[in-house]
Amino acid sequence: MAQVDLSWVIPLAILAGLGFAAILARDVLRRDTGSDRMREIADAIRQGARAFLRRQYRTIALIATTLAVLFAVALGLQGGYVAGLETAGAFALGAMFSALSGYIGMHISIRSNVRSAAGSLKSFNDALVTALRGGAVSGLSIVSLSLAGVAILYYGYGALGPLTNPTTYNACINTGLFTAAQCVAQATEDSLVLSIVGFGFGASLVALFAQLGGGIYTKAADVGADLVGKVEAGIPEDDPRNPAVIADLVGDNVGDCAGRGADLFESTAAENIGAMVLGVVLFQYFGVAGVIFPLVARGFGVVASIFGVLVVRAREDEAPMRALNRGYAIASVLAAILFGVAAWAMLNPVLPTASGGMTWAYYWLCGITGMITAVIYVWVTQYYTEARYRPVKEIASASETGPATNIISGFSVGLEATAIPAVVVSIAILASYWLGESTGIPGGGIYGTAIATMGMLATAAYILAMDTFGPIVDNGAGIIEMSGMSESARKNMDKLDAAGNTTKALTKGYAVGSAALAAFLLFNAFLTEARVSSVDLAHPETFVGAFLGAALVFLFSAYAIRAVGRAAWAIIKDVRDQFHENPGIMSGTSKPDYARSVDIATRSALREMVVPGLLAVGTPLAVGFFFRFVRITAGNLGGKGSSTHKAAVVGDTVGDPFKDTAGPSLHILVKLLSTITLVIAPLLI
Amino acid sequence: MAQVDLSWVIPLAILAGLGFAAILARDVLRRDTGSDRMREIADAIRQGARAFLRRQYRTIALIATTLAVLFAVALGLQGGYVAGLETAGAFALGAMFSALSGYIGMHISIRSNVRSAAGSLKSFNDALVTALRGGAVSGLSIVSLSLAGVAILYYGYGALGPLTNPTTYNACINTGLFTAAQCVAQATEDSLVLSIVGFGFGASLVALFAQLGGGIYTKAADVGADLVGKVEAGIPEDDPRNPAVIADLVGDNVGDCAGRGADLFESTAAENIGAMVLGVVLFQYFGVAGVIFPLVARGFGVVASIFGVLVVRAREDEAPMRALNRGYAIASVLAAILFGVAAWAMLNPVLPTASGGMTWAYYWLCGITGMITAVIYVWVTQYYTEARYRPVKEIASASETGPATNIISGFSVGLEATAIPAVVVSIAILASYWLGESTGIPGGGIYGTAIATMGMLATAAYILAMDTFGPIVDNGAGIIEMSGMSESARKNMDKLDAAGNTTKALTKGYAVGSAALAAFLLFNAFLTEARVSSVDLAHPETFVGAFLGAALVFLFSAYAIRAVGRAAWAIIKDVRDQFHENPGIMSGTSKPDYARSVDIATRSALREMVVPGLLAVGTPLAVGFFFRFVRITAGNLGGKGSSTHKAAVVGDTVGDPFKDTAGPSLHILVKLLSTITLVIAPLLI
Repeated sequence: MAQVDLSWVIPLAILAGLGFAAILARDVLRRDTGSDRMREIADAIRQGARAFLRRQYRTIALIATTLAVLFAVALGLQGGYVAGLETAGAFALGAMFSALSGYIGMHISIRSNVRSAAGSLKSFNDALVTALRGGAVSGLSIVSLSLAGVAILYYGYGALGPLTNPTTYNACINTGLFTAAQCVAQATEDSLVLSIVGFGFGASLVALFAQLGGGIYTKAADVGADLVGKVEAGIPEDDPRNPAVIADLVGDNVGDCAGRGADLFESTAAENIGAMVLGVVLFQYFGVAGVIFPLVARGFGVVASIFGVLVVRAREDEAPMRALNRGYAIASVLAAILFGVAAWAMLNPVLPTASGGMTWAYYWLCGITGMITAVIYVWVTQYYTEARYRPVKEIASASETGPATNIISGFSVGLEATAIPAVVVSIAILASYWLGESTGIPGGGIYGTAIATMGMLATAAYILAMDTFGPIVDNGAGIIEMSGMSESARKNMDKLDAAGNTTKALTKGYAVGSAALAAFLLFNAFLTEARVSSVDLAHPETFVGAFLGAALVFLFSAYAIRAVGRAAWAIIKDVRDQFHENPGIMSGTSKPDYARSVDIATRSALREMVVPGLLAVGTPLAVGFFFRFVRITAGNLGGKGSSTHKAAVVGDTVGDPFKDTAGPSLHILVKLLSTITLVIAPLLI
Repeated sequence: MAQVDLSWVIPLAILAGLGFAAILARDVLRRDTGSDRMREIADAIRQGARAFLRRQYRTIALIATTLAVLFAVALGLQGGYVAGLETAGAFALGAMFSALSGYIGMHISIRSNVRSAAGSLKSFNDALVTALRGGAVSGLSIVSLSLAGVAILYYGYGALGPLTNPTTYNACINTGLFTAAQCVAQATEDSLVLSIVGFGFGASLVALFAQLGGGIYTKAADVGADLVGKVEAGIPEDDPRNPAVIADLVGDNVGDCAGRGADLFESTAAENIGAMVLGVVLFQYFGVAGVIFPLVARGFGVVASIFGVLVVRAREDEAPMRALNRGYAIASVLAAILFGVAAWAMLNPVLPTASGGMTWAYYWLCGITGMITAVIYVWVTQYYTEARYRPVKEIASASETGPATNIISGFSVGLEATAIPAVVVSIAILASYWLGESTGIPGGGIYGTAIATMGMLATAAYILAMDTFGPIVDNGAGIIEMSGMSESARKNMDKLDAAGNTTKALTKGYAVGSAALAAFLLFNAFLTEARVSSVDLAHPETFVGAFLGAALVFLFSAYAIRAVGRAAWAIIKDVRDQFHENPGIMSGTSKPDYARSVDIATRSALREMVVPGLLAVGTPLAVGFFFRFVRITAGNLGGKGSSTHKAAVVGDTVGDPFKDTAGPSLHILVKLLSTITLVIAPLLI
């Protein structure tokens, strides 16, 4: 059958996503905010979170602007000012949208927490629905903004017509095989690749610092509050006598909302562009449809996620994960159907192929492969994090012989948990590659892997809604606890809090899994663009690049973990001082100085994020220029310049599995490594 | 200048190494064994260690024999019975020598411990010298046996003359360029490659189970004894009232001596063969000298290590590490000089090259690069493990806020500790490659890396002596403590015990560092032999192979760590039971049943080593046959068969850096993965 133009889906899906996010936000914000005491606590959280974000964004803006100017000038001097400006412009767009994603997520989360808590006074369902919808505002905004960013770049360059990239356009039109519109698309795509560099780098940079600063804050406050509160003073979690309790609640927002939002914005955007770049290789078969198919598929995924969020209702006695999983199942089935429609309408080759009229079905199966992968990931994470299954039980029983055997057991379960996901992703890569290859289209195999990635990310907005659900109910439980509300409200929120811990873990697993698929995809997209045919691990520079990439991941983890330890120490010291200076706190006669702890957490986290952040940005620069320097002095420059680039790309890819061993910042580090390498590549060759 | 034949160094060095080990063993065994009480304790340790080793070797022999027969039959059916028998014979040789290395190390170590303890009654120097010489018996035996094994294979095949490999011999002689002797050497080398597979696999298999079983035993006994003894019962380390105290002392021997001995035997042998294979590529330039240079260099290293051991004397008030470092420095300088002599005599090209008459100096510098790498590794390990430097101080101060911040800090330091070694190894790989490349000889770059590996391993015997020194003084300190000896003896042994912990850590770091160099070397040797020109990470099967290889490392670590947890739990339970059943133990009126704890530790460790061991052996088989199966059913067999092999080799290499995160078993796992893959490769293609 002929191609059907579905490009109209893209703007409609963006509007639907953002519009629906606004409707949900209004719905949540109209809800009851509970008692005065609850509002008072929520206000303290809100102020702390906003103060942190304001100061953090100021630091990030400074670093980002400096780098943007430096790169624009350096690239401009070397490759012409158009390329320099295009890269710098895309960089600014990526950085701004990434920051915006983080901001929206936190803005709604610090308002949903108290409303979810107030909902729990009425019914379990009220609390759950409020929290999930608050989370969905964040999830839908992030995915829609990511889609919008890529679409702006694509259609923005497209609007320039033949001017986008005259060289490509003229070469295309001179073949006589394509229409003017098709050649504009090809020229646009060539410029789009420049923009992946800038856009991805801008988004990564903001995401790295946002996740790093937020991550240090949240874990330091958590560890600090627990160690002095629970262990030393012997008071329960979220006890109002603990001076660090507000800092702990603030941390959930700045770490899990703002940080994760910026991170996943970057992932979805980069993966979209990667799939589009690979679609261009199949231009002769699918034309523009192959290039914009990823955007349409992402758009349909947004629509499916909206339905998933809408249908969630919980019975009073139901396990919250059951209700959330129901919504996820519906979103997945709907996404699978819509994915099939998109493939059926768009992926019909105009040249004869081995798969003939069934080509679209092969790629639909690739998408289904990705969706099944996502479902298995969600299931595996629940298996490894819920109390009713073997792993958690095993760790619990190991605790009987003390903290040492508990940690041995926990670390062992953590390592073990990577096995099934690794096997599943491997099967997904091979299956989708072989399916795509079976179409007989040259480059069809790797496009199949790209489609599988899109399938895995189809329900990203729903997964993100579950993720932000986590800090909202965590905060809600804290507010209920601190304001001394009824037993039934407390029980409702505690159930949700436990589910929230699972949904937060789930997103991390999902993010890592999609990153593994995407690593392979981006790797190939980069190679396609750089016109590098193979990356040979037997070459010493490549091997060393891989080795150093892996080492950087270890060092970065070391600094990030140490930063948490140091910031936690500052908080512990402050809480001890407060208990010492004011004995009335423990006896309940006077209130602790929450703001002081919040301020210390903010200052420590921001101070501690600088070294690992600069390490991440500086190392690829240092390695790249070291290689260049050595090669020039050795007089061997010719023909070897690109090995630096290859080495760094391998370092990036090899580093990917290491992510599992450390926190979500590593996820971003890996992306940042690849984009920064591409930005400086022209300066090295 | 002309080539000088130095092949006579090889048998002389083997004889010198083994003879000197015998002399040292006599010297140690003639020494005083202290009081009756000390002998009684030492007897208990010896019996426990021997019982464990006997039962462990029985299990390993069963698994090894089964595999040898299976592979011989399978390879025989496919590739002819000569190849099958050659592989199986080399397998048996590797397995036996590996087991023998482990046995010798433990045999002398369980006799030196009490003699070192008795020495401490007299003087500090007596205790130190006894322990170091006991360790040197083990170190010299291992390195000499490894050299002997490779030499037996090389000269054994060589003695077959043209019959070794008639195809290669005839092709060589027909060129008219080479003498008959040279062509025999080429044919021998082709067969030698078959033997690397069998020999390396046999050695790896034994080493894996030896290190795994011993490692589980030692850590389980250590953790178990500490948790019940120190934490629960509040009695000091090595207190005779602790029923697990003998099991703990046995563990040091079976883990650090027997296991490490088998491991490093395998490493040095595999690296030697790898360097020889790469030497064949340069046959036109260096003839046989390039092939046997690694053997000669290793032989000179043995001689240098003997001198290093002999000169160590300690003043009464001296820090033990200073005395040990002095011996190491002398061994290193002597090894560097002898290395230069060997290069000057053997590495003179018979064809014109860019480096001309100075070619030997380029390769000497490669060797020096490796030696400097080893020295830096030793220095870095001391920096990270000695109490007087920043890292240990930092961890100690983090302990002030409890075990949680202590573990965070320790984990962070552990991750950080990988950075300098990774950078140093990277520089060593690149520098030696560039040096070798600058000679202008085709394949000279990678040979330079091989020479650097030989340089790093030149002082291996001395390093191994320091390693086995660790368990000897640990046992000695335990014997002194349990037999209630004088304060001065206790102080002497405690100082040595602390130094022993550093030397044990040092060998692990050194083993990992040399493995990183060797990974690149073996990787290239395999590619050279398999006639594979590049390993492309952009190919899905390669990428998936790398990914699964990394995942296997995680899963293996998970199982190994869990095994320790389980075995420790069994010991804890037994100790608690003994305290409960017999209250006289704690009051000191009756003796605990040490043998019962030793028996439980033995049974648990042997039971728990099976699953991770079979996982390591089974996974490459499963993945290999899965790939083959899929490819056959997909009808795509042609030309793709070798991707399995490549994928597994990459998996092996990528897995290497992960080793740092887990114990020494991983070191062996990585080697095993590559050799098992090569063994089954003919069955898959």
